[in-house]
Amino acid sequence: MRHDGRQHDELRPITFDLDFISHPEGSVLITAGNTKVICNASVEDRVPPFLRGGGKGWITAEYSMLPRATNQRTIRESSKGKISGRTMEIQRLIGRALRAVVDLEKLGERTIWIDCDVIQADGGTRTASITGAFLAMAIAIGKLIKAGTIKTNPITDFLAAISVGIDKEQGILLDLNYEEDSSAEVDMNVIMTGSGRFVELQGTGEEATFSREDLNGLLGLAEKGIQELIDKQKEVLGDSLPELK
Amino acid sequence: MRHDGRQHDELRPITFDLDFISHPEGSVLITAGNTKVICNASVEDRVPPFLRGGGKGWITAEYSMLPRATNQRTIRESSKGKISGRTMEIQRLIGRALRAVVDLEKLGERTIWIDCDVIQADGGTRTASITGAFLAMAIAIGKLIKAGTIKTNPITDFLAAISVGIDKEQGILLDLNYEEDSSAEVDMNVIMTGSGRFVELQGTGEEATFSREDLNGLLGLAEKGIQELIDKQKEVLGDSLPELK
Amino acid sequence: MRHDGRQHDELRPITFDLDFISHPEGSVLITAGNTKVICNASVEDRVPPFLRGGGKGWITAEYSMLPRATNQRTIRESSKGKISGRTMEIQRLIGRALRAVVDLEKLGERTIWIDCDVIQADGGTRTASITGAFLAMAIAIGKLIKAGTIKTNPITDFLAAISVGIDKEQGILLDLNYEEDSSAEVDMNVIMTGSGRFVELQGTGEEATFSREDLNGLLGLAEKGIQELIDKQKEVLGDSLPELK
Amino acid sequence: MRHDGRQHDELRPITFDLDFISHPEGSVLITAGNTKVICNASVEDRVPPFLRGGGKGWITAEYSMLPRATNQRTIRESSKGKISGRTMEIQRLIGRALRAVVDLEKLGERTIWIDCDVIQADGGTRTASITGAFLAMAIAIGKLIKAGTIKTNPITDFLAAISVGIDKEQGILLDLNYEEDSSAEVDMNVIMTGSGRFVELQGTGEEATFSREDLNGLLGLAEKGIQELIDKQKEVLGDSLPELK
Amino acid sequence: MRHDGRQHDELRPITFDLDFISHPEGSVLITAGNTKVICNASVEDRVPPFLRGGGKGWITAEYSMLPRATNQRTIRESSKGKISGRTMEIQRLIGRALRAVVDLEKLGERTIWIDCDVIQADGGTRTASITGAFLAMAIAIGKLIKAGTIKTNPITDFLAAISVGIDKEQGILLDLNYEEDSSAEVDMNVIMTGSGRFVELQGTGEEATFSREDLNGLLGLAEKGIQELIDKQKEVLGDSLPELK
Amino acid sequence: MRHDGRQHDELRPITFDLDFISHPEGSVLITAGNTKVICNASVEDRVPPFLRGGGKGWITAEYSMLPRATNQRTIRESSKGKISGRTMEIQRLIGRALRAVVDLEKLGERTIWIDCDVIQADGGTRTASITGAFLAMAIAIGKLIKAGTIKTNPITDFLAAISVGIDKEQGILLDLNYEEDSSAEVDMNVIMTGSGRFVELQGTGEEATFSREDLNGLLGLAEKGIQELIDKQKEVLGDSLPELK
Repeated sequence: MRHDGRQHDELRPITFDLDFISHPEGSVLITAGNTKVICNASVEDRVPPFLRGGGKGWITAEYSMLPRATNQRTIRESSKGKISGRTMEIQRLIGRALRAVVDLEKLGERTIWIDCDVIQADGGTRTASITGAFLAMAIAIGKLIKAGTIKTNPITDFLAAISVGIDKEQGILLDLNYEEDSSAEVDMNVIMTGSGRFVELQGTGEEATFSREDLNGLLGLAEKGIQELIDKQKEVLGDSLPELK
Repeated sequence: MRHDGRQHDELRPITFDLDFISHPEGSVLITAGNTKVICNASVEDRVPPFLRGGGKGWITAEYSMLPRATNQRTIRESSKGKISGRTMEIQRLIGRALRAVVDLEKLGERTIWIDCDVIQADGGTRTASITGAFLAMAIAIGKLIKAGTIKTNPITDFLAAISVGIDKEQGILLDLNYEEDSSAEVDMNVIMTGSGRFVELQGTGEEATFSREDLNGLLGLAEKGIQELIDKQKEVLGDSLPELK
Repeated sequence: MRHDGRQHDELRPITFDLDFISHPEGSVLITAGNTKVICNASVEDRVPPFLRGGGKGWITAEYSMLPRATNQRTIRESSKGKISGRTMEIQRLIGRALRAVVDLEKLGERTIWIDCDVIQADGGTRTASITGAFLAMAIAIGKLIKAGTIKTNPITDFLAAISVGIDKEQGILLDLNYEEDSSAEVDMNVIMTGSGRFVELQGTGEEATFSREDLNGLLGLAEKGIQELIDKQKEVLGDSLPELK
Repeated sequence: MRHDGRQHDELRPITFDLDFISHPEGSVLITAGNTKVICNASVEDRVPPFLRGGGKGWITAEYSMLPRATNQRTIRESSKGKISGRTMEIQRLIGRALRAVVDLEKLGERTIWIDCDVIQADGGTRTASITGAFLAMAIAIGKLIKAGTIKTNPITDFLAAISVGIDKEQGILLDLNYEEDSSAEVDMNVIMTGSGRFVELQGTGEEATFSREDLNGLLGLAEKGIQELIDKQKEVLGDSLPELK
Repeated sequence: MRHDGRQHDELRPITFDLDFISHPEGSVLITAGNTKVICNASVEDRVPPFLRGGGKGWITAEYSMLPRATNQRTIRESSKGKISGRTMEIQRLIGRALRAVVDLEKLGERTIWIDCDVIQADGGTRTASITGAFLAMAIAIGKLIKAGTIKTNPITDFLAAISVGIDKEQGILLDLNYEEDSSAEVDMNVIMTGSGRFVELQGTGEEATFSREDLNGLLGLAEKGIQELIDKQKEVLGDSLPELK
Repeated sequence: MRHDGRQHDELRPITFDLDFISHPEGSVLITAGNTKVICNASVEDRVPPFLRGGGKGWITAEYSMLPRATNQRTIRESSKGKISGRTMEIQRLIGRALRAVVDLEKLGERTIWIDCDVIQADGGTRTASITGAFLAMAIAIGKLIKAGTIKTNPITDFLAAISVGIDKEQGILLDLNYEEDSSAEVDMNVIMTGSGRFVELQGTGEEATFSREDLNGLLGLAEKGIQELIDKQKEVLGDSLPELK
């Protein structure tokens, strides 16, 4: 059994607080165990220069952590004057993942900005960000549809993400918290759709390697976890996004 | 009457959620009307270079807004690669104000970092930050005292801040929200102690001026508001900071 | 008596050298005791993006110190690659103060850039900058009026600034030099118009506080000093700005 | 057949020019089709601060492209003053991959800097960088061993990387060139060891998704390609790294 | 005799590899002894803002060194986030020199970007860059002429550069390598045309001075070296630039 | 005759105001026609890292222009966040030139910072900076000698600089003002010592070239001008630097 009492294939308790912040078109506080991320979706009526005039929309994401989201205070990236490689990787990943389940032509020439701000971190912040960001985006798009701004629902499928990993002693684990993540030999982030297809797969052995068999075990766990997350998403979303089937 | 139904000398509803974030030594979510600021206090066992070896401590603050804390999404300062003049002014102000009610020698050679992160903004974010930051700092210092790390309470007085202003039609107002602040001719931020002394006073006429009489009216309102805030602080702080008299 | 022989309510000797630099539309070297600031006003025939097409003008300021304006050489902000919080605060303050006495609609869609470069510093550089900048701006605007570019004088009043403070031993003091400023418990910068109205008030207790009575004493001193400064301004300005009444 | 005449499971012609640059401890020009990367390994006798005194070594990488390595000239990152997210991702990936096959304790308290500079790009620059960097690193470490500076070979296995992808019409493909990469629906980079274990796996559907079956097909191709690359590495390395078994 | 066996007025062996990189309109690898520089010329169909609409073209250059082009690894300028003064001086020099032998009106409203990337350094990198850059530019312009894009050859003369210097013991020397350059008292870079006219002359005594007589000796050596370089350029260029006489 | 009435070999009127700023160890305002530069020398009791512990001193310079030193206001380099290539070239040149006439071992392990701040520009700002900086440095060193901090005078010779150039119509000219400089075909800056030796020579044909004969004419003019400048320096310096012979 894991130090927090979970089974190896058990997710941490997950909740979604919708409309957590009042200004954004979509706002969700996702809580996954002790990890808490505010996911806000903002709609802007224009697209980046490389897309202008093409009729297609864009979805982009930014990710940040409060300095004291972590156990040790970290220096703000605004104070350092530059964004770390880790932050860039994560925000590129979130944007790419969301774009995989949205038909950008149906979205029309507008941008959805996703802001994922981690206010408390205990592992899995990038996967929680994606899972929460999908909901915030869906809510924002739902409003555009209800307002008649968008005719057809551009969202093609549900989307969630989870981490899996290999611990030297406990073997494969689902949804690692910070302590488990720090000691894992292999760490994998999996992003999947509601229909069970992969959107992104990033598996890394930090100073370690893994076999094809390990990979298969990890993917099995991830599929189970993502299915549960998407069930939750559907439950809380209710009919906010009526046309998504 | 004001558009939200308040009297001219009435504060917005205020609440303090203690221990809002789990990692920091002191953490408070202050809610003042629709303005919400996470105030975290972190204790670090060293001081900046200019103080090293002198036995004195330091208190410093950082302030930031989530991009969608505002009605229009603002660009992150980390993305722009630099901190705005407004942010710098505010974080310097918060640090200076807190240092005015702490005996830095009694604090000993350690730094208290205050992080004020506005997650939802509706005017008065800098004054709410100060009022919340004082509580977060007091809780962190209370823990240092209980742990025996600090022998004598270094906090010399309570501290809170409020905005007052002059509206062309409604005259002087206490605790302006965003709409009132935008149309005010004169805007003043007042920071005071529990014993009613000024710590900082910043009155500005943006494309306008004000008389000595106006000033006296504004200061009267501010004193009333700050007294109410400090009463609230005392109530929620309870005996977290036992030695403060 | 003060260490330089002044009374507590006595300004340092002040002079204005008009046309100090030949290129700007308005140029003044202000000397206040040992503090010397070159104030240049430049007229640009366009406004920042947020004002374009609205028919209103803009006034903005930049402030800098030569590295050896101070007793210890300071590092250039251009070498550090960023502007300090202190510089930002000061330049925002100068711009705001000048805008309070100019009718931006009458100025028309043009920008006045104010550059305050401290070549020698001995306390009070921000207030000397404002007092000198008003003159440089007035001269530049006077030329626009004489040339017929502007029909009506957009300047609504004279403007000057001074510092006041509280010394532990000497009590309240007018126009603090560097030595006095360093040891003052309370430091206040006051900006007022020729008709005796406040434009901005910034009072700060660095690791100290002050009472309402202290405040009243400080404001009295400041009013006296500012009146003397504005008398000087009127004297040197003569009829450079004929239409200002 | 592919537009350059290759079979779907065929690598592009690959060559390694050892000692391409004279100064570095290890230097390799890797040519994979029309992609050319200079991989230099530099040995430095100290480690980053977070490792000092721990007896462990470090391996880190930097990646860059000449402005005209690409068909359209790109702006230098030094001119822009910041490194792009793409560059950061790649250089973090290279460093992480190499560390997976080196026993950092056996390396001792020194850093190996890997510089991968793409002088001509035609797809697969990050995987070519890793395959070439492993050789450059091995040569540098071989010299340390021959000089007696390191007692035991810290390299635990060979390492190479390749891209695989899914084309809408041609299906799964090995070693995509720029044209194929641009039109691929799914793009996957695979890094493996000589013993056939995964070090890193990054599969991405840009505006697309993929199934578990697709994944298996891609991994099969990648394994074949990597085995061929490692055979080449062994051939050219000869006995430069005698103790690696 | 010099430590590498050369006479005092002898160039190092020089070679030009044309079409070294496939994408640029002109690409030359210049090898001068152990100094190797990739010189790429890119044609862009627009000019910088200050020239737009005037019918004139522009030539600009960028210069960089690979981190391990030198004996000690140097930090990338992209990692430092800024370009050094040395780099700026060199790239301004290269651009200025090339513009001196091109009729920018005949070039028409287009920009030629020159990228000089030093992959191996052993002294004289800036002069080798200029000598190689002229060739790369000539090839690119030759293609524009052959394609009929440019009607008349805008190149007015050949161009090459060399360093000369004074060694305390050996006296005046032509084409200094790194070791000689490090110990030289006077260092001079000379840029001349095929017709023997100066384009730029930069002579520097680092902690030393030189006489008019010294200068004359240095210029004589430089003229000899440059004539030899230009002969080589003509030889390799052949009829790539047919209309240059 | 030139448009300001000067002969082709005539300097502009030159004055040196010693002790222009009170804080620096050496301070000179140099006025050359309408060009005015404040040259301040600051002594710091330590050297840059690369010299520490070697007993040698260092001399370094910074150069800047007030935004309105020029006819059109230029943007501050501190606002842009980076120093231009032109500024870097000039400040490197000033430092190098001064080091050529100072025995850094006799200076001892200290740094002399030279700050050249152009308050009004009309051509020749870099040469005026050098000529004025030499005086400021000499005064600062004179004080070190008088105070007994330095035993032997480390200054080995006087130093001054001037510009010369070739005008299409007027031929060779000494000491070009801004208008002449803008239209000159060849521009040369010459730095020489009191004994008539060259320290630095930078001749540039911007979109033009020059012959050996042109060069000789220019150098003749420069020598004449520099001799006159050094005579002036000696006159104003008087016995401030008693031991210089």
